[in-house]
Amino acid sequence: MKLSSIPLNERPALVRKACVTLGVAGFIIPRGDEYLGEYVAPCSERLAWLTGFTGSAGLAIILPAVACVFSDGRYTVQMEEQVPADLWERRHVVLEPASDWLSAHAQGQKVGYDPRLVSQSMLNAWKAPNVELVPMAINPIDSAWSDRPAAPAGPVQVQPDDLAGESSASKRARLASALKQAAQDAMIIADCTSLAWLLNIRGSDVPMTPLVHGYGILHASGKAELFVDPVRVPVLVSGVLGEDVSIRHPSELEARLAALSGKSVRVDPTTTPVWFSTTLENAGAQVSCGGDLCTLPKAIKNSVEQDGARRAHALDGVALARFLQSVEKSGTGLHETDLVSRLDGVRALAAEYRGQSFDAISAVGPNGAYPHYRAEIGRDRILEDGSVYLIDSGGQYPFGTTDITRTLWVGRNPAPQHVREAFTRVLKGNIALSRVRFPVGTPGYRLDALARSALWEAGLDYDHGTGHGIGSYLSVHEGPQNISPAPRPTALQPGMIVSNEPGYYELGQYGIRIENLLLVKESTIHGSAKPFLEFEVLSFTPIDRNLIDVELLDEVELKWLNDYHAEVQRRVSPHVDADVQSWLEKACAPLKH
Amino acid sequence: MKLSSIPLNERPALVRKACVTLGVAGFIIPRGDEYLGEYVAPCSERLAWLTGFTGSAGLAIILPAVACVFSDGRYTVQMEEQVPADLWERRHVVLEPASDWLSAHAQGQKVGYDPRLVSQSMLNAWKAPNVELVPMAINPIDSAWSDRPAAPAGPVQVQPDDLAGESSASKRARLASALKQAAQDAMIIADCTSLAWLLNIRGSDVPMTPLVHGYGILHASGKAELFVDPVRVPVLVSGVLGEDVSIRHPSELEARLAALSGKSVRVDPTTTPVWFSTTLENAGAQVSCGGDLCTLPKAIKNSVEQDGARRAHALDGVALARFLQSVEKSGTGLHETDLVSRLDGVRALAAEYRGQSFDAISAVGPNGAYPHYRAEIGRDRILEDGSVYLIDSGGQYPFGTTDITRTLWVGRNPAPQHVREAFTRVLKGNIALSRVRFPVGTPGYRLDALARSALWEAGLDYDHGTGHGIGSYLSVHEGPQNISPAPRPTALQPGMIVSNEPGYYELGQYGIRIENLLLVKESTIHGSAKPFLEFEVLSFTPIDRNLIDVELLDEVELKWLNDYHAEVQRRVSPHVDADVQSWLEKACAPLKH
Repeated sequence: MKLSSIPLNERPALVRKACVTLGVAGFIIPRGDEYLGEYVAPCSERLAWLTGFTGSAGLAIILPAVACVFSDGRYTVQMEEQVPADLWERRHVVLEPASDWLSAHAQGQKVGYDPRLVSQSMLNAWKAPNVELVPMAINPIDSAWSDRPAAPAGPVQVQPDDLAGESSASKRARLASALKQAAQDAMIIADCTSLAWLLNIRGSDVPMTPLVHGYGILHASGKAELFVDPVRVPVLVSGVLGEDVSIRHPSELEARLAALSGKSVRVDPTTTPVWFSTTLENAGAQVSCGGDLCTLPKAIKNSVEQDGARRAHALDGVALARFLQSVEKSGTGLHETDLVSRLDGVRALAAEYRGQSFDAISAVGPNGAYPHYRAEIGRDRILEDGSVYLIDSGGQYPFGTTDITRTLWVGRNPAPQHVREAFTRVLKGNIALSRVRFPVGTPGYRLDALARSALWEAGLDYDHGTGHGIGSYLSVHEGPQNISPAPRPTALQPGMIVSNEPGYYELGQYGIRIENLLLVKESTIHGSAKPFLEFEVLSFTPIDRNLIDVELLDEVELKWLNDYHAEVQRRVSPHVDADVQSWLEKACAPLKH
Repeated sequence: MKLSSIPLNERPALVRKACVTLGVAGFIIPRGDEYLGEYVAPCSERLAWLTGFTGSAGLAIILPAVACVFSDGRYTVQMEEQVPADLWERRHVVLEPASDWLSAHAQGQKVGYDPRLVSQSMLNAWKAPNVELVPMAINPIDSAWSDRPAAPAGPVQVQPDDLAGESSASKRARLASALKQAAQDAMIIADCTSLAWLLNIRGSDVPMTPLVHGYGILHASGKAELFVDPVRVPVLVSGVLGEDVSIRHPSELEARLAALSGKSVRVDPTTTPVWFSTTLENAGAQVSCGGDLCTLPKAIKNSVEQDGARRAHALDGVALARFLQSVEKSGTGLHETDLVSRLDGVRALAAEYRGQSFDAISAVGPNGAYPHYRAEIGRDRILEDGSVYLIDSGGQYPFGTTDITRTLWVGRNPAPQHVREAFTRVLKGNIALSRVRFPVGTPGYRLDALARSALWEAGLDYDHGTGHGIGSYLSVHEGPQNISPAPRPTALQPGMIVSNEPGYYELGQYGIRIENLLLVKESTIHGSAKPFLEFEVLSFTPIDRNLIDVELLDEVELKWLNDYHAEVQRRVSPHVDADVQSWLEKACAPLKH
């Protein structure tokens, strides 16, 4: 999508001019928008407009004589390709932090930032000695970007109680009681996924995640204010929201924050732009730092949401079976992007499908070695005979969000033994995590090594976490729980959904990842002094037998795999045609030692 | 040992009188001494003298009309028995913190503490609103305890370079270079194990750990000052210490700290009494909080220390074989404390044995269910036919410190199946940890679940960490590494020694623990993109076959066990007599499915 008709190489000069008018030497432009989420709307693609860089993480700093774009290792090549070298330096944000660059180039100067786009933790990372960071009411990008697209204006939709499983009034009452207990009068809701969960609303303001871009204030009375243009809220929707949810134009936000003068207001410093805290403090409110109270209850799916997740995965399993059968039958010769379209197409055969939950990763051979690879038309590989093919994708359904990865061997000859060994070790990790029982109170980091030890045994590993949380018809990445080497304290709790996605990546050769979603539930085990938890597997799609070295599986693992495949066939087969049924029969046939 | 001839019930009044003289309402008495270590000398048993309580953790607060002793759940019963109820309240320090008690009883009052016995973190835990905590130059216990024993005065001994593996000069040069890099002029060494490591000295000032009670100052020049009464340092020893180590009387400490005026001085806030920081600050030095620089290099054993550890374990393995054979032959009818004496006796057959490294845990049946149980003469159990017996013990040798636990079935009939199952699951955990390979950079917490998952599978667990670090002829508990659910960031590094001690405890019935020490070393695995580490098992003592349900072991585990037992026999058999040899042969015979 074209963001602007202003030539890319003319944009920095326009921004520098706007900076002069505003009285600052330069400006810091983060990638994110005022909702600090994973995806941004076209009107908020300020970093891409200014620099040409379209990666999902980064920032730019523009000064009178120099300018620099920062991103991480995933985007080194992309930065080089997209960002004009005569106008911009390009830096690795971890190895060469923005604060160092500022320190070297902006001594004694004022550098502006937009406090509505920046959280306290972002701001802390930019601090440099003898550089004054100045919050600006006017964003010079917005001044210079004269043909900036309009903000999303689609209608707010209701997530019905029979899909949400709990009314907004009930959720608000629960949180209001927590606010009262903390002696707080109100909470700012800046995270759009929290807003969607709390008010049982959905929207279409960004790709991949059905969000409404807006803010909320929850009062200790249980009443809420929703800041979104009222013209976007159909009468039927405002009727469902009820009179305890006041819909206000975003232009009223500042005045409504000022009305909290003298109150204690809970603000999550990681999800809330700093503008909120300064506005509240200037108005005489007491800002109380504390985690977003929606985060934990949103992560703990109620029984209706759990059933919805099972239903979404049932549809997804049918789509995946159709897709995998078609790849086997007629996949060779197709481009990676064709395969994404084909998978999207088979998912769309379900009337309830609402689109991808993220940009699918469709990676042939060496492209699979980049865990975050994204195929692009015109530069993507063709699936050829004798390839490892990795497909990581997910769907949005009104009752659940899915995320699944399968790795296939596409070839007439058997897969090389070293690939089969690595795949089987990844599978052993996936099975170990699927089967584990653990005591109540266990955080995910304690389970991470169980998914790795079979790889470690052979000196192999993968350089990403093992699992992330997933929303319920919301974001495909959701906290607070995860399964990762880094120790997040949140315990895994019944109702949480988490991915199980160990992998192995051989640079220049191939990538392997096997991902199912898991639902945390109480364990039925007897004779235990304290309560235990276990996982219910939600994803039902065959794991490629062509890549399994059965001799590397022990009896327990082999039984798990055969039971899993039998269950895949039992669940999926009734919903597919004869061709796919006979493919499933072969793909799910038991393996033996 | 009798601490005083003053009757126990007269002591509080003496201390209250001393408080009046000092101008404070009351006083806080921690259990620890001015070195904040695990063991204290009789002269520092202030808590025991004042209250009668001899547990290894706790504190007392005495006020004009009320007084209270605090300890944790391990010592609830012991507090009730030892501390006179008419003079003292008894509290669980976690459930009813000292700060709450102070807040309830000392409103508006001054309560003293001895800043030489208290670290900053201890002080923080006592803070209560509207209670003034006052550091006192004079300790009222010391005033009241008129027949207090003298401080330890044994000679300082040299740990020769051929056992330490690195000269003190070399260690000091390494640390001095780190101090310079941190732009610090000196470091306070308050941890006696760090002092012992850095200066290659040992002593006999406390039981179980060969420490010298003293302090050190390391200067960025590499020179050091050792504060210990010079009469305790033989001429030969001061000669070895050399002219770069100045030996000063402890009475000079305050003046020497004052001489650091204007300098930047590194102080570890967790191991250093607050007196140091206030003294330094009052003298105009800049206190720079930072970890004790000895901690990590002390934990990473050099090749000489590693060989020493192997040698210590060889002697220990011979002692354990003799002991276990004798328990089988003639153990029934003995008291738990008799068994400790017998084990100490067989260890002492080695000329190099320097005594226990901690109070051995010798626990019959239900006593084993308390992981920290300590048998006492006159109240200990007798080893009867049909018992589970747990023995956790260690030895000090000039070249290494050992720590090993074995659990035995003592009985003519077979052990009950539920005990065999629990034992075998503990063993599976021990084997999993012994066998694991892991990437360089992995902290111990990531490995903890590997030792538990076999227990978890059956709904079982244990409520303690899996492993702790161990000193080299030093403390049996040593940081910074461990293997535990709580996430300590320190990575396991080649040369570190760590215990592997999963367990299972059935209250009122029995306790199971299997403990070996492990040495971290580089893995020899091939084909790995990044370096991997693995463990070398140091402890060689049979694991009781009577408690193993071989059907619960998989092929890999069974092979590990049989290989381990073959190695035990190969190593130990040449050093024992025919009776023990034939016992070993049976104890180490291979098991089959």
